[in-house]
Amino acid sequence: MHKMHYQEADSVAINNDIASGITARVVIGKAHGAGNFCMRVFELGPGGHTPRHAHAWEHEIFVHSGVGEVFGNQEWSSFKTGDVVLVPGNEEHQIRNTGSETLIFVCLVPSGAPEL
Amino acid sequence: MHKMHYQEADSVAINNDIASGITARVVIGKAHGAGNFCMRVFELGPGGHTPRHAHAWEHEIFVHSGVGEVFGNQEWSSFKTGDVVLVPGNEEHQIRNTGSETLIFVCLVPSGAPEL
Repeated sequence: MHKMHYQEADSVAINNDIASGITARVVIGKAHGAGNFCMRVFELGPGGHTPRHAHAWEHEIFVHSGVGEVFGNQEWSSFKTGDVVLVPGNEEHQIRNTGSETLIFVCLVPSGAPEL
Repeated sequence: MHKMHYQEADSVAINNDIASGITARVVIGKAHGAGNFCMRVFELGPGGHTPRHAHAWEHEIFVHSGVGEVFGNQEWSSFKTGDVVLVPGNEEHQIRNTGSETLIFVCLVPSGAPEL
């Protein structure tokens, strides 16, 4: 068994021309022995956002804390603590923090996708 | 894209001789188009516990709210909001709520495992 608080995992800060205000962590991945799917945790500061993109693999998302919006099905919709989202492979998607607190969400990808 | 609050999913109450105080929901599964892994959310009331068992597939767990204990590596250890746990396949495991509030955790399994 592997157990830790998610903030104990190594973090990567992402701030570039297509994504900003992101702290990302692989919390359960190949290094821990997870062979089928990988769990990451993302923190987005107020105003932070992920890139608008599409890729072959799906996302399974659980919103741990905060409020924001998710782009999918060609429109923005709000999401909040306790919401779950499935983004199918090849669907354009993006997430942004529209609140005043940090938006924290868990996002899983299948093996074969980049862990981060 | 599939999006909902986890409590909007159909729930199953589990109370028997080996598990008690559990409300379980499949929130992202085959019915939603998820082919590689399945997200479930469990609520355990105070004193509630999952069965002590082992099976071939792994669990990837994120603790959304509350405090409890997880059995793995042949011993109990505490866990709390924000903790992540990987239970490898074939390792004996169990979870119990040792707090006074509901323990809520996300638990994912690979395709091929029972969704609930």
